[in-house]
Amino acid sequence: MGPLSDLYRPSLSLLTDLYQLTMAHAVYKSGAWKDEAVFHLIFRRPPFASGYTVAAGLENALEYLAGLRFTEDDRAYLATLAGADGKPLFDQAFLDELGRLDLSTLEVDAVPEGTLVFPQEPLLRVKGPVAACMLAETPLLNLINFPTLVATKAARVVQAAKGEPVLEFGLRRAQGIDGAMTASRAAYLGGCAATSNVLAGKVYGIPVKGTHAHSWVMLFDEERESFQKYAEAMPNNCVFLVDTYDTLQGVKHAIEAGQWLKARGQSLLGVRLDSGDLADLSIRARKLLDDAGFPEARIYASNDLDEKIIESLKQQGAKIAVWGVGTRLVTAYDEPALGGVYKLAAVRRAGEKDWRYRVKVSEQPAKTSTPGILQVRRFETPEGFVADGIYDQERGWEGALEVINPFDPTLRWPIPEHATAHDLLVPAMRGGKIVLQGESLEQARQRVGQQLERLPAGTKRFLNAHLYPVGLEPKLQELRTKMVLEARKVAKP
Amino acid sequence: MGPLSDLYRPSLSLLTDLYQLTMAHAVYKSGAWKDEAVFHLIFRRPPFASGYTVAAGLENALEYLAGLRFTEDDRAYLATLAGADGKPLFDQAFLDELGRLDLSTLEVDAVPEGTLVFPQEPLLRVKGPVAACMLAETPLLNLINFPTLVATKAARVVQAAKGEPVLEFGLRRAQGIDGAMTASRAAYLGGCAATSNVLAGKVYGIPVKGTHAHSWVMLFDEERESFQKYAEAMPNNCVFLVDTYDTLQGVKHAIEAGQWLKARGQSLLGVRLDSGDLADLSIRARKLLDDAGFPEARIYASNDLDEKIIESLKQQGAKIAVWGVGTRLVTAYDEPALGGVYKLAAVRRAGEKDWRYRVKVSEQPAKTSTPGILQVRRFETPEGFVADGIYDQERGWEGALEVINPFDPTLRWPIPEHATAHDLLVPAMRGGKIVLQGESLEQARQRVGQQLERLPAGTKRFLNAHLYPVGLEPKLQELRTKMVLEARKVAKP
Repeated sequence: MGPLSDLYRPSLSLLTDLYQLTMAHAVYKSGAWKDEAVFHLIFRRPPFASGYTVAAGLENALEYLAGLRFTEDDRAYLATLAGADGKPLFDQAFLDELGRLDLSTLEVDAVPEGTLVFPQEPLLRVKGPVAACMLAETPLLNLINFPTLVATKAARVVQAAKGEPVLEFGLRRAQGIDGAMTASRAAYLGGCAATSNVLAGKVYGIPVKGTHAHSWVMLFDEERESFQKYAEAMPNNCVFLVDTYDTLQGVKHAIEAGQWLKARGQSLLGVRLDSGDLADLSIRARKLLDDAGFPEARIYASNDLDEKIIESLKQQGAKIAVWGVGTRLVTAYDEPALGGVYKLAAVRRAGEKDWRYRVKVSEQPAKTSTPGILQVRRFETPEGFVADGIYDQERGWEGALEVINPFDPTLRWPIPEHATAHDLLVPAMRGGKIVLQGESLEQARQRVGQQLERLPAGTKRFLNAHLYPVGLEPKLQELRTKMVLEARKVAKP
Repeated sequence: MGPLSDLYRPSLSLLTDLYQLTMAHAVYKSGAWKDEAVFHLIFRRPPFASGYTVAAGLENALEYLAGLRFTEDDRAYLATLAGADGKPLFDQAFLDELGRLDLSTLEVDAVPEGTLVFPQEPLLRVKGPVAACMLAETPLLNLINFPTLVATKAARVVQAAKGEPVLEFGLRRAQGIDGAMTASRAAYLGGCAATSNVLAGKVYGIPVKGTHAHSWVMLFDEERESFQKYAEAMPNNCVFLVDTYDTLQGVKHAIEAGQWLKARGQSLLGVRLDSGDLADLSIRARKLLDDAGFPEARIYASNDLDEKIIESLKQQGAKIAVWGVGTRLVTAYDEPALGGVYKLAAVRRAGEKDWRYRVKVSEQPAKTSTPGILQVRRFETPEGFVADGIYDQERGWEGALEVINPFDPTLRWPIPEHATAHDLLVPAMRGGKIVLQGESLEQARQRVGQQLERLPAGTKRFLNAHLYPVGLEPKLQELRTKMVLEARKVAKP
């Protein structure tokens, strides 16, 4: 095996579940290769019981689709796979066809990164040949679910820090290399100020920050000496980690090094607390620093922080000015997967003009899908966001100006007459090209902040977040109910 | 930005925390570039309250170290970073030195993949120039923590399935591309039978398996037709997903397709349940299949399964024969990060002969480290594993034949006289070469099974797993206590 960075080269086209390929094969064999489908990528439940979710991952997802080709090497591997009878799983004619497949011909509409989204709303809509749509499923879910999860967690952590910088320090505990790289990007998108991950700094242009580790202190016989040596070597980057032996003693040693720095026109930037009672220690450390004439030296804290611990520390009066958040951010520790799904909503036979709408029913209400070619319309007033409505783009908004909760149709939200509206899904890929251009990570990051300001305060609460009104346009709700009832009737034995 | 697979090329050397580089810089500037250090990678607490943990990730970690070079491009990026005064963080002379750095010169000892390990035991020991050791920290943690976590989770899930195959289906919910690839490999190492991730099949030689999705059924106007078409297209791979509309009706449709297959000399391999009451539905589905003459068709189940749900389903008499486990396995959902750390334990100044041992103290007992150049000795009798002892390899096992719990020194486990012993850490990298050769994924996977058979039954329980005896060799315990007391005394104001 080659070096790690070569591991997955030259092709990521097999980064998919086997069943996508066996279904594509079955599509081919059953003569449906030119039939078309519409799929939506949605999630059913917000992560962390959050009132809002931050869409992320689109840039990578589009690049993946645009670049995907089944190479000769990929097809040679697929030709080795056998079924239960020991014979090949795949016909050679299908594998040849796979070699010609180009997923960039899919028509993709998507919500731009950094948009606030809610359960049941499509984040992506994919239209095109059935098999191509299917082959896009697994990688799209892989590339959208996780960054969306981390961007949401980051936005919450940043919200808890109330304007104080949050630094993402998670690389060592992240789930693999991409786990880290994706998390660093998504954390910045969600509002973090910087990352410790230098490669993410280089690749994504994110500011990089860091302090030093316990090992630096332990290199020396005494802590005091270690700080002094660090100050001499890195006079413009001194945040001392003070808890290797005794935290408050460490602060005093940091102050000594700070006095040395000050005499040379440099600054003690701060101290970092990494264990113990952070609330109490930060208050005592603050006093020591202030009394010694270092009011501008900031107290950094780390140690399994998340939005709830930050909120609690602030309530306890902690004097922490910079928050280093790692494990619990980059793994989304309290809910490490977003349950995004990718569901078929319409099919069109080759040569036919009309779409046949589809619905999947389930005894678990949230698993029943919505038929159609869906779009999301966001209504707002000068005061902020009012409601989102999911409607069928083919039919337009036919019904009354209200949105209906799909799981409790008696729960309806009227739209104020003076509300303005815009559609969230915008063209992202057309005719082989990525058309959602001009989006920078910085723009997506700003979008999160702008949209959070327009979201009702109750929806932003951590505890019992108020439900933001999202529902179906009345005619779509009617159609869905009819189709689900029909499907359940057919299903009866 | 280039295609996704190119994203991190050509170099992963910056996949590290900034502070490793600033510390390396400080080492350089303070004249300690040729000083040496010993670091250990340990974890403090088992994941999932598991009685055992499965070491994994070593192959990638060694390849990373062996291949790491700071390219001109990497150094050019580092030269752009500035400190608080706007001046460069790094001296050019240091960056030049970085360009000559070769981490493969580190001396690495490690426990082979698939070894059962326990808190406080070094999984890796790294010896070499201080800065090189520091620069290895973050990537080693990233590349060891996560696979160890997933291999452990997989071993537990496989244990719950009691010999029935477990298929890893997690790609879509994994934390990024490597999150998925690493998880697929670690899950197989931990005992899973196959993965749905085709790229993992190709890269790691893992068997790939799959069924089909709801979307296949929804392509057709009727479920019956969809199964028939699938049987015609893929007669040697028919496991039908039966819950798109009504599960038991779906089983009947699968049986019809099965009869068609049987008439052509092929087999109905099984049906898959993906929602609803899996225990009840599997019993009913089993009866339908048996009554229709398909006793060999197996019932597959999926839907947020983990070891505890599998154990519960078995207790309820579920007739499930193949377990598809995704999200909760590949993200290690209930505890998605292993808290592995990498701690300095000894330093040696350039030109000196003796190591100076180091200890970090903390008010949190588990955060206090162990000094020395450590090795782990496993004692066993014909009945199985007895205890593990951590000792200082420089001094050898000097004390009595017993091991002492470092957190409660009154808790001591004597070693039976007839016990045999072997050391867990073996040479992994020497003189620029990976020397731990001949290890295949298959061997590591077998090691897990073999070692689990030798572990006391109580230690394998999911609920209140009994503590496996791991402790310090008596003389090391004595030394550690003395050094910690001294460090605490020095730390007093």
